[in-house]
Amino acid sequence: MSIKKIAITTGGGDAPGLNGVIRAVTLAACRRGWECVGIRHGFDGILHADEFEDGGTIALTPSRVRGIGHLGGTILGTTNRGNPFSYRVALPDGTFEIQNISDRLLKGFQDLEIDALVAIGGDGTMEIACQVAELGITVVGVPKTIDNDLDGTIATFGFDTAVSFATEAIDRLHTTGASHNRVMIVEVMGRHAGWIALEAGLAGSADVILIPEIPFDLAKVAEKVNQRNATNRNFSIISVAEGALPIGGEASYRTTGGIANLGGLGEWVAENLRPLVPNQIRTVVLGHLLRGGSPSSRDRLLALRFGTAAVRALEAGKKGVMVGLNPPEIHYVPLEEATRKMKLVPVDCDMIQTAEDLGTCMGR
Amino acid sequence: MSIKKIAITTGGGDAPGLNGVIRAVTLAACRRGWECVGIRHGFDGILHADEFEDGGTIALTPSRVRGIGHLGGTILGTTNRGNPFSYRVALPDGTFEIQNISDRLLKGFQDLEIDALVAIGGDGTMEIACQVAELGITVVGVPKTIDNDLDGTIATFGFDTAVSFATEAIDRLHTTGASHNRVMIVEVMGRHAGWIALEAGLAGSADVILIPEIPFDLAKVAEKVNQRNATNRNFSIISVAEGALPIGGEASYRTTGGIANLGGLGEWVAENLRPLVPNQIRTVVLGHLLRGGSPSSRDRLLALRFGTAAVRALEAGKKGVMVGLNPPEIHYVPLEEATRKMKLVPVDCDMIQTAEDLGTCMGR
Amino acid sequence: MSIKKIAITTGGGDAPGLNGVIRAVTLAACRRGWECVGIRHGFDGILHADEFEDGGTIALTPSRVRGIGHLGGTILGTTNRGNPFSYRVALPDGTFEIQNISDRLLKGFQDLEIDALVAIGGDGTMEIACQVAELGITVVGVPKTIDNDLDGTIATFGFDTAVSFATEAIDRLHTTGASHNRVMIVEVMGRHAGWIALEAGLAGSADVILIPEIPFDLAKVAEKVNQRNATNRNFSIISVAEGALPIGGEASYRTTGGIANLGGLGEWVAENLRPLVPNQIRTVVLGHLLRGGSPSSRDRLLALRFGTAAVRALEAGKKGVMVGLNPPEIHYVPLEEATRKMKLVPVDCDMIQTAEDLGTCMGR
Amino acid sequence: MSIKKIAITTGGGDAPGLNGVIRAVTLAACRRGWECVGIRHGFDGILHADEFEDGGTIALTPSRVRGIGHLGGTILGTTNRGNPFSYRVALPDGTFEIQNISDRLLKGFQDLEIDALVAIGGDGTMEIACQVAELGITVVGVPKTIDNDLDGTIATFGFDTAVSFATEAIDRLHTTGASHNRVMIVEVMGRHAGWIALEAGLAGSADVILIPEIPFDLAKVAEKVNQRNATNRNFSIISVAEGALPIGGEASYRTTGGIANLGGLGEWVAENLRPLVPNQIRTVVLGHLLRGGSPSSRDRLLALRFGTAAVRALEAGKKGVMVGLNPPEIHYVPLEEATRKMKLVPVDCDMIQTAEDLGTCMGR
Repeated sequence: MSIKKIAITTGGGDAPGLNGVIRAVTLAACRRGWECVGIRHGFDGILHADEFEDGGTIALTPSRVRGIGHLGGTILGTTNRGNPFSYRVALPDGTFEIQNISDRLLKGFQDLEIDALVAIGGDGTMEIACQVAELGITVVGVPKTIDNDLDGTIATFGFDTAVSFATEAIDRLHTTGASHNRVMIVEVMGRHAGWIALEAGLAGSADVILIPEIPFDLAKVAEKVNQRNATNRNFSIISVAEGALPIGGEASYRTTGGIANLGGLGEWVAENLRPLVPNQIRTVVLGHLLRGGSPSSRDRLLALRFGTAAVRALEAGKKGVMVGLNPPEIHYVPLEEATRKMKLVPVDCDMIQTAEDLGTCMGR
Repeated sequence: MSIKKIAITTGGGDAPGLNGVIRAVTLAACRRGWECVGIRHGFDGILHADEFEDGGTIALTPSRVRGIGHLGGTILGTTNRGNPFSYRVALPDGTFEIQNISDRLLKGFQDLEIDALVAIGGDGTMEIACQVAELGITVVGVPKTIDNDLDGTIATFGFDTAVSFATEAIDRLHTTGASHNRVMIVEVMGRHAGWIALEAGLAGSADVILIPEIPFDLAKVAEKVNQRNATNRNFSIISVAEGALPIGGEASYRTTGGIANLGGLGEWVAENLRPLVPNQIRTVVLGHLLRGGSPSSRDRLLALRFGTAAVRALEAGKKGVMVGLNPPEIHYVPLEEATRKMKLVPVDCDMIQTAEDLGTCMGR
Repeated sequence: MSIKKIAITTGGGDAPGLNGVIRAVTLAACRRGWECVGIRHGFDGILHADEFEDGGTIALTPSRVRGIGHLGGTILGTTNRGNPFSYRVALPDGTFEIQNISDRLLKGFQDLEIDALVAIGGDGTMEIACQVAELGITVVGVPKTIDNDLDGTIATFGFDTAVSFATEAIDRLHTTGASHNRVMIVEVMGRHAGWIALEAGLAGSADVILIPEIPFDLAKVAEKVNQRNATNRNFSIISVAEGALPIGGEASYRTTGGIANLGGLGEWVAENLRPLVPNQIRTVVLGHLLRGGSPSSRDRLLALRFGTAAVRALEAGKKGVMVGLNPPEIHYVPLEEATRKMKLVPVDCDMIQTAEDLGTCMGR
Repeated sequence: MSIKKIAITTGGGDAPGLNGVIRAVTLAACRRGWECVGIRHGFDGILHADEFEDGGTIALTPSRVRGIGHLGGTILGTTNRGNPFSYRVALPDGTFEIQNISDRLLKGFQDLEIDALVAIGGDGTMEIACQVAELGITVVGVPKTIDNDLDGTIATFGFDTAVSFATEAIDRLHTTGASHNRVMIVEVMGRHAGWIALEAGLAGSADVILIPEIPFDLAKVAEKVNQRNATNRNFSIISVAEGALPIGGEASYRTTGGIANLGGLGEWVAENLRPLVPNQIRTVVLGHLLRGGSPSSRDRLLALRFGTAAVRALEAGKKGVMVGLNPPEIHYVPLEEATRKMKLVPVDCDMIQTAEDLGTCMGR
C-alpha cells in the first residue's frame, strides 16, 4: 500500500520534545508528498470529534509546524482520559462503564482516509498502539517518558530536560543548605524507576540518593548526614524519587503517614529523619516543573531523529514497531517488545557504582 | 577615628549575592589597607566563638574571596537564631529565657579590635544593626531581602534572581497547562509584599496574580478561568504570593484550612477553586528554590556596588546608615528610616495598571 | 479627538522585548475598544506597501499576539533602511537621491484611518517620531536600545538580556583563560556608551574594562595583566566595548590597524597587547549574539510596562512624548528631550568607583 | 602490584567536565586508601617542576576537590606545550630542538612514588599515554574532546555543553535574522568532525549545515536561501564547522581567501555567498565560548562515571586502556585502538538523514 495520508497523536503526560516530533514527522511526510493530520488530545479528537470546534483534527503543514521545535508541551494537546479499548463512558444514570469503543476510532480513521498512524507516548500509549495495530491500521510508535522507564530505547526526549532542571534545582538548594546548615530534600518524578533522582543526584553532588530500585534504610541516611556534620560539612542534600520506598516496603510507609497525609516520599523522609539528625530539614517537590519548559538541545535532537525515523519506517513498509535509540543509531523494535517490561535502574550498573565510589549514600 | 579593621556579618535567610557583597567589601577594604574579618553564622561566631572550630571568625583576604562572586549563599553562613539584644538562652532546667547578651558582642568586638561593622541582612538584621550602633560601634548596613520589601532602596540583590527563576518556572508550567487544559498554580515567596508574584506573574504571562496587598475574591479568579475556557484557551496560570489572602482576611482562610493543614496559600486556592471550574488543578510551591543558585548578572552587580559603597561610606566617616539603590546612583539612608516600614506594592502603581491593562486578574 | 485605531512600528536593530511591547500595546488598546495595526519593517509597510504580500500592515488582535511575549526579535520586522524625511531613493540612472517622502507616510496614515502611532525604537526612530509628530500625527515613543544609551529613561528592554548574556560569556572565558594561562578579550556592543562592557565586566569579574567614555592607556592594561601574572593568577579577562578608544584617540587607532583591517577594537587590543605580556591572547566578539534570544524576566516586564503606559498616555491625550523608566514608576518625557543627548557612563559614577575599588583596571 | 599512590594529568584544550573527572578520581581513590596527586599543566608540573611555586604537583584530597564538579576548566591547568617524547627544547643559541625527555618524566614518577597515572585528554594526550605505558607505567586514559571526534567512546564530556551553547546561540541568531531578513552564519568548532555543527544545527533548526565530512557546493547553499526568500521566509541560518570545505577542497578555499586573510570558514562562506543572495549576511564565530562554562548535567554525569571507572579499572589491574561510554554502560578499550582513527560523522547516519528529511541543506 502506498501512503497518502498519515495521522499523529500524542498521549499521556506532556514532555519537552513532543512538538519536535510533530514538526519532524510533518516535514518528513510532506517532503514525500503525504498529507499529515494531527489528532487533538490523544484520540479524543476522533472519539469525540463533535466536542471540538475545529473538528478534532488539525491539518499539519510545514507552515503550521514552523517554530514549534523549541516549545515545550504539544500543540495537539494530550490526555490521560482514555484508552479506546477500555473507555470510561458516562451512562445516563450518572454512573460509568468501561466500554470498547475502538470501532469509533476505526471509523474515524476510515472517514479521514488515514493510511498510517504515528503514536507518540509512553507505555500506555504504546499498548494502545499495539491494539490499534491489531485492528489492521499501520502504526509506528515514538517513545516518550520523562522517567526514562521505557524499554527498547536507551533514551527518550524529555528526560534530559528533566534531569537538567532537577540538577539546577539541586545546585540551588546546595547554597541554601550550606548557608543554613540544613538537610535539603528534593523529590523528583520516578514512580517505578529512579533515573532522574540518580542522574540529577550525581550531577548535582547529592549526598544521599534514594530510588525505587533500592529499598532504603533510613538509619543509613541519618548516618551519612551525621558523618558529614561530624566533619564540618553541616548540610546534606538528598535526592529522592517519588517512588522510593523504605526497606520493609509499602506497608510501613503507608501506616506511618504516606502520600495521602503528607506531600509524598520527600515529606515522609523529612518527618522520619528529623528525630535522627540535629539539622533543620526542608523539602522541595519539583513535580510539574520537570515536565515543562523548552527542550534541551539533546532532547530537541532526539525528537527530530525519532520523528523522521518514524516516517522512514512507514516509507519502508515497517509496521507495529517503535522507534528507539541504540547509540549511535536509531533502531526499530516490535511494539510488544517495547511494552513488555519497564527499564529500571540495574542495581549494579556503573552509575550506582559511581555513586558509591563518590561516597554517596544509596540508602543501603 | 581611622579604621584599621572591619568585620562583616550576614544575617537572616540566604540570598544570591551575599558572597558578592563579602567579596566587594573585602577587596575594597584591603585596598585601603584595612584588615577584614568575617563573623560566622550571623553573630554566633562571636556570641558562641567556642562552638566553632575556626574560632568563629574568618580572616577575609583577597585570595580568600577569589571566585566567590558567582556563588549563591554565603561563605560565612547565616542564622535566624538570635538577636543578641533578646537572645533565646537555654537554662539548666531545660527551659528558655530571653536575655540581652549584647555585652558579649561588645566584648568580642573589643577583643578582636574591630573598628567598624558591615551588617548584611534584612529588616531583622537592620534592626539589630541599629541597636549595635547605639552601643557605640560604627555600623553600615547592606540591605538583603529576596522579597524586595525593604524600604530605603529601590532594589536588593537576590530579588532579580528569584524573579527570573519564578518566571522560568511559570514558563514551564505554561506548556504543561496548555497541553492538559489545566489550571496551574505557582506559589512564590512574599509574606507581606507581592513583588515576586507580581513581577514573575507579569513576565511569565500569568492569567491571575494574587498578592498580599490586594485581598482577593475567589469568584473573580474563577470568572477569569472560565472566561478563558469559554474562548478556547482551556488553561490558566495563577501566580500566588504565599502571603496573599482572600477578602475577609486571615480568619476565613485559617478556618477553612490554612497553612497548617494544607501546603500554603497555593493549595488553599486549589482546594477552593476546584468546585468553581471544570479544569484539573495542579499546584507547585517554589519555596527554597527561589533563594538559591548563582546570582543573576543584575544581582551580582548590585552586590558589588553595595559592598564597595559600604566601604566608601566607612571611609567617609558615615555611620548608622544603610546603603541603598536610588537609580542610577547609590545613596545612604539612616538605619532607622530603612526599618521604619515595609516596602509594599502600591495598589495603584504602574505595574498593577500594566497587569490590568493586559487583562490579568488581580483578584479584585 | 477620541482614538479608534492606532498603529505600531518597530525601527532600528532588533532587541529582546520588542514583541512584549507589541503584545502589551495590542492588548491594552483592544481592551479600550481600539483597533490596532502593525506596520511591517519600520515604515516600509506604508512607504512601500506594494512590496508586501500582506499589504504592509498586520491587524494586531489579542489572538495574533498570543504567546509572543517571550520571543526575541519583532514579529513586525524592522529595518535600518529609511527615514521618510530623508529617504534614499533609487533613481532611474542607477544613482541615489535623498528625498523627503513623508507625504507618502501621511497619506498612508490617512488611508488607514490611523489616529495615533506608537513608535518603538532607538534614537533614530525617536527623531523620526518627532518629525512625524510635527506632521500632526499623535505619536508616543517607546525607547529601545541594547546599548542603554537613550536619555530620558533609566533603562530600556533588551539591555538586561544583553548584559546577562555577556556576563555568561565572560564566565565561560574565565574557565578557559584560567586553564590555559591566557588573556581572554571579549568585545561587546557599545559604540558610544560603555554600559554593557562595564556592567557585564563587573558582574563577570573582568580584570580590565575598557569603555568609550574613558580613553585607555594600553600600558596600564599590560601592567594589570603582568601584576596578576606576578601574583600567580596567570590569566586575565578584558571586557571591551566596541567603541572604546586608546588615549590619543581615533587617529592612532586607525593608523595602526583599526576596524577596517582587523575585527574591531578587541582585535586591536589583542595585537597591541601581545608584545607587552607573556600570555597567549584570544579574542571573542559577541556581536549579534547580544541582540537575540528570549528576553530576561526584567526585560519582559519592562516591555509590558512600556507598552501599556504608551496606551495609557494616548488615552490621557498625551502626545509627542516618550515613555521612560524613572524607578519605581513610569514617566513621560518630551520626545525632543529624549533625543537631545546620549546617556553615557558618567566617569565618576558609583559603578566606576566600584570597579576601581575592586581593583579592576579601567585603562586609566 | 598493589596501588598506593596515583597521579592525574589533564592535557590539551580545556573542556567542561575535567574538574568532575578530577573530583571523581580523587574521591574514588581516597576511598580505597590511595594517595592522589595532580600534575600541573599537563606534564609540565613534572618536566619543569622547578618552574612552579607549588613544586608542580598538588595533593588531591576530598576537601581539595570539594565543590569543583560544576566548575568549567581544570584546577590542574592544562597545556598544549609538550609531548615529553618529542619536546620542543630551547637551546642556548636561541634555536629549538625536538628531544625525547621522557626519562625526566619517568624519574619524576619514581621520585614521587607514583604507581599509576590517570591521563585525561584528547587524541594527543592518549598517544602520549600509550608511550608512557610503554615505559612501564600503569596508565588508564579518560577521553576528552569538545569535538566528539575520539573513537572508542560514544560520547565525551564537554561535547554536550558545547552543543547546548551552540544551540542557544543559533536560537539567538534566529530572532535577529528573522527581524532583519538576514542570513546569519554561525561558525563552531570542528576541524575534522562536524558533530557540533550538525547536532546544534539540527537542534537549532538551522537551514543549512556544513560539515567537514561532506564537501559543500555553495550553489546549493544559495539555492536554499533563495528558495526560502521565495516563500516569504526571508532569512536563513547557516551552521558551519570551522573545518568544512567547499567541493574541490582546500586548494580553492586557500586561494580565494582562506583562514589566513579572513576570519575562518564562516567568513569565507559569507564573502562568497554575498553575490548569490539578496540578503544581508552576518557571521558569528563562537570559538572559545564553546569550551568554557559550567558543564551540563549530562557532562557532569559522564565526567563522574569516567573518573570512577578509571579508578575501578586500576583496582582491577587493568592497564593501557581508555575508559569509554558504550550505552548504557562504561567499557574499556585498548589505548592504541582509541587513537587509531578519528570518529567522523558517517555521511549516511540517521542524523544526516534527519537533516535532509527536515529539508535542511547539507551543501550537497
